[in-house]
Amino acid sequence: MSTLFLRTLREDPADAELPGHKLLVRAGYIRRAAPGIYTWLPLGMKVLAKVEGIVREEMERIGSQEVRFPALLPREPYDATGRWTEYGDNLFRLKDRKDADLLLGPTHEEMFCLAVKDMYSSYKDLPLSLFQMQNKYRDEARPRAGILRGREFIMKDAYSFDVDSTGLQKAYDGFREAYIRIFNRLGFEYVIVQADSGAMGGSASEEFLAVNENGEDTFVRDEHGYAANVEAVVVPQAAPVEVTAGSAHVEDTPDTPTIETLVNALNANHPRADGRSWTGADTLKNVIVMLHHPDGTREPLAIGLPGDREVDPKRLETQVAPAEVEAFEGKDFAAYPMLAKGYIGPGALGESKSSAIRYLLDPLVAEGSAWVTGADEHGKHVLDLVHGRDFTADGTIQAAELREGDLSPDGNGTLTLARGIEMGHIFQLGTKYAEALGLKVLDEQGKLVTVTMGSYGVGVTRAVGVVAEDNNDQAGLVWPREIAPADVHIVVASKDSAAFVKADEVVRELEARGVETIYDDRPKVSPGVKFKDAELIGVPTIVVVGKGLANGVIEIKDRRSGHRREVPVDHAVDEIAREVAR
Amino acid sequence: MSTLFLRTLREDPADAELPGHKLLVRAGYIRRAAPGIYTWLPLGMKVLAKVEGIVREEMERIGSQEVRFPALLPREPYDATGRWTEYGDNLFRLKDRKDADLLLGPTHEEMFCLAVKDMYSSYKDLPLSLFQMQNKYRDEARPRAGILRGREFIMKDAYSFDVDSTGLQKAYDGFREAYIRIFNRLGFEYVIVQADSGAMGGSASEEFLAVNENGEDTFVRDEHGYAANVEAVVVPQAAPVEVTAGSAHVEDTPDTPTIETLVNALNANHPRADGRSWTGADTLKNVIVMLHHPDGTREPLAIGLPGDREVDPKRLETQVAPAEVEAFEGKDFAAYPMLAKGYIGPGALGESKSSAIRYLLDPLVAEGSAWVTGADEHGKHVLDLVHGRDFTADGTIQAAELREGDLSPDGNGTLTLARGIEMGHIFQLGTKYAEALGLKVLDEQGKLVTVTMGSYGVGVTRAVGVVAEDNNDQAGLVWPREIAPADVHIVVASKDSAAFVKADEVVRELEARGVETIYDDRPKVSPGVKFKDAELIGVPTIVVVGKGLANGVIEIKDRRSGHRREVPVDHAVDEIAREVAR
Repeated sequence: MSTLFLRTLREDPADAELPGHKLLVRAGYIRRAAPGIYTWLPLGMKVLAKVEGIVREEMERIGSQEVRFPALLPREPYDATGRWTEYGDNLFRLKDRKDADLLLGPTHEEMFCLAVKDMYSSYKDLPLSLFQMQNKYRDEARPRAGILRGREFIMKDAYSFDVDSTGLQKAYDGFREAYIRIFNRLGFEYVIVQADSGAMGGSASEEFLAVNENGEDTFVRDEHGYAANVEAVVVPQAAPVEVTAGSAHVEDTPDTPTIETLVNALNANHPRADGRSWTGADTLKNVIVMLHHPDGTREPLAIGLPGDREVDPKRLETQVAPAEVEAFEGKDFAAYPMLAKGYIGPGALGESKSSAIRYLLDPLVAEGSAWVTGADEHGKHVLDLVHGRDFTADGTIQAAELREGDLSPDGNGTLTLARGIEMGHIFQLGTKYAEALGLKVLDEQGKLVTVTMGSYGVGVTRAVGVVAEDNNDQAGLVWPREIAPADVHIVVASKDSAAFVKADEVVRELEARGVETIYDDRPKVSPGVKFKDAELIGVPTIVVVGKGLANGVIEIKDRRSGHRREVPVDHAVDEIAREVAR
Repeated sequence: MSTLFLRTLREDPADAELPGHKLLVRAGYIRRAAPGIYTWLPLGMKVLAKVEGIVREEMERIGSQEVRFPALLPREPYDATGRWTEYGDNLFRLKDRKDADLLLGPTHEEMFCLAVKDMYSSYKDLPLSLFQMQNKYRDEARPRAGILRGREFIMKDAYSFDVDSTGLQKAYDGFREAYIRIFNRLGFEYVIVQADSGAMGGSASEEFLAVNENGEDTFVRDEHGYAANVEAVVVPQAAPVEVTAGSAHVEDTPDTPTIETLVNALNANHPRADGRSWTGADTLKNVIVMLHHPDGTREPLAIGLPGDREVDPKRLETQVAPAEVEAFEGKDFAAYPMLAKGYIGPGALGESKSSAIRYLLDPLVAEGSAWVTGADEHGKHVLDLVHGRDFTADGTIQAAELREGDLSPDGNGTLTLARGIEMGHIFQLGTKYAEALGLKVLDEQGKLVTVTMGSYGVGVTRAVGVVAEDNNDQAGLVWPREIAPADVHIVVASKDSAAFVKADEVVRELEARGVETIYDDRPKVSPGVKFKDAELIGVPTIVVVGKGLANGVIEIKDRRSGHRREVPVDHAVDEIAREVAR
């Protein structure tokens, strides 16, 4: 500690919100270099190397071979698959001195596909599984929570190559098992959820989400074992209902541009015949957003959903990708005078209607159901407007928020919601990339077949962040032993030179046995400061060589439980080694 | 080998010139992804990891601490030191989605300096030594020889921080020793030469050059131990000589725009009084180049040197850096009508002359010496033009080529020339960066002093390339044991299943003893192809399990010497392990 490049901080960094992020900065593991771009300090490097080691070990265990593709890549392969454009603003693009287009790799499907195409030609060469671990780049709009969502980050990406879908399934299952082993070893709570395969194309895909209330992802679970990222949930279309409403009628509803004001006005001025109160669930809310396509064009989209639900931005983004979602603003309303803001209804929406805006309905809107919705005139709503009788839309969209208590997609369970952080993602890509780039091999019959691929990612730097979020207390970080920056943190809590001599000896003996130590040998720092630093840094075992020495004992403290015990100084090394090996 | 991601090539790759580069591609260690940008295949990753391991071990041995700064960096610190501009076209620059300027780090002096500034404040915190190993980026005009000069490459860069120059010298000496250990372990011939500190600023600096006839660097040595990169050689100014020439006189020398034609014409039409022949050494050649400054401006420069020498482009570039050297072309001559191409003389050159072009003389041009040189008129030269009497220049420049047999700078030795590849560079940067970025600490007297820095680099991926250039033969690569992709390459040279069973057993036992193996278990590949592949891949020990098995023996071959011996199959594992441990 007297020479370690480290200065612990007593104050939280201004730009950090999550506890783990604050502690990683305060304890000197990482430092911010630019928004979303971090430097790894010596303690951080130790943890990172251990996480990389675990990932590498588990990849090699399933026979995946390590390679390393460049981070700086030529444009052409990404043009061939469309990702040069589809990635939009998330892709870092640059030009070299000869004006050639380059990019910083976000993932490497294209490059792996081309390398295999170049080297392999027969079904006998397959199956093949390759992985790499290196810096990836994404120009995130909102870099977040330090290393949880950075713009430069280390990812382990892997790819499998098989001649048919049976082979792909086997590779996928192998990676799934390997990921379970990796995340079990890393030491945080996670769930495996069905995932949307998004911009990657392909079919089956699952995510490993760290369960964390500060996570950006929301997932659902039911009591029968179903679990899915909300982006991947397909809410079934509500079954048609018998029409019971009378004919639709427009009513004056002045000053009711929101669902809340509308419901209040309905209950005050338009009581129902059966005496029930109106609620937001009786209203049909029509939300308009602007889609920004990767080619630069913009196009509005209208979404009709029950008034008691909001549009879930991530579910919507998933549905419209690679387009990005922007707000439909004042100037946009000016371009569509038929839209009465706050009173928009199906009368103006739809490709065949006056606005010509594509109009999609939430699947909860059953055919035959009656709604209160905008009458496309300021201060007016239409009541008893029946879906299928009085209006139709251009299709449906999975964009409404899901709620605690909603039915599972199979109709047999009840959903609960929780939040998570994506730590791993396994995809059955299928032939999308192989087709775009012409990766074919000869099969047993001598016929050319397109290779089928899987793609498998682990956020390596992110894993360090998640472990920190999941393993801390008021005093600091509490590392799981397998990835701690050291096994033991030895504090000399005395000014007596005998304590230093004894501690030197203990450190030497431990290192000789292969036990990694952090040794707080700072001569002029008070024991209190040293204890605080040890708790902050979070090595699992803390050893105190101090006043107990007079009685022939030193103290061993378990960082996680706080349990302390004194051991005779003569057995100290053995006792510590035993503690470390547990 | 039946599953390894590898296809050896019988043909040399079209874009490779050097033997090591050809073999690294043919043997499946690396693959070109774009000009100057390479992919590392599984065999290459093994070698790379071992080289990285050696470098890390030797850095940690001298107490340097590993960190990792981002590769994607903000512009501001590089503006503060001027390198954003000075790096010119060699720097990869890009913009993020918010239009902020970013760069891909070529080296990280600025970032390290700022981190230390932020964390340290006292002389008690020093000395400090930090290193990192990661991708660096330079947009080379001429990427070359595969991984020897790439645009994305792995470099180990390290920085030392001291309170005074005594501390810096100690740090520098420590790195020097560590580098000697690293390069001795890597297994190629190298020399330590005085170096120019170039764009990095600072004072003392040495390079570790791999001795290689295909190298881009030229260095000189003398018989007394002096060694320097030609860029760093300072040729002493020739002592003044007594003027013996008569007065200068212009002569008609039609059609003599080159030194050769001029010398011939002089000998034919203007014989010397003393009967000696004219040679190129009697003529003063004036070369004009165009300097391209980082700020985009262009400026001509004239260099006067003995006609029997050429301007050395690298020595010139070093002198004019950060400006780049371009040709002075036809359109440039048009802008300077006073320059008679092929007959340019000191009469038109110099800041006070008609051209106003800055004119610098080679230090071999002694005051008092007489020359034949251009008379600034087509077809005319001036004879007996005496330096100091008839013309002067604006200064001197170290730009002429050095020659075998030239005097050493100290005048006591004779130079020999050789070529090399820069593998390591150690610099005493001094306070240049610390001053630009305000890195100061309080000294023992409580006074703020600027920290003095050293900077130390090793080309890690380049080292793999150099070892390959230095260790190969007609049949393929010949790896030094410490960085070979495996210890033993086991070939089954038989279709007999007993041979496979025995080889499986040998491989299993070797692996259990920690011996790394490549196992050629391909069932349908002929022994000849397997032998060829083994020689090409270049693992130091090759074991053949084949027809000898009938007589109870297997063959052990030393890849480098070609020496073969048969050992009883029962002792094979012991014998191989002994061979590997040598």
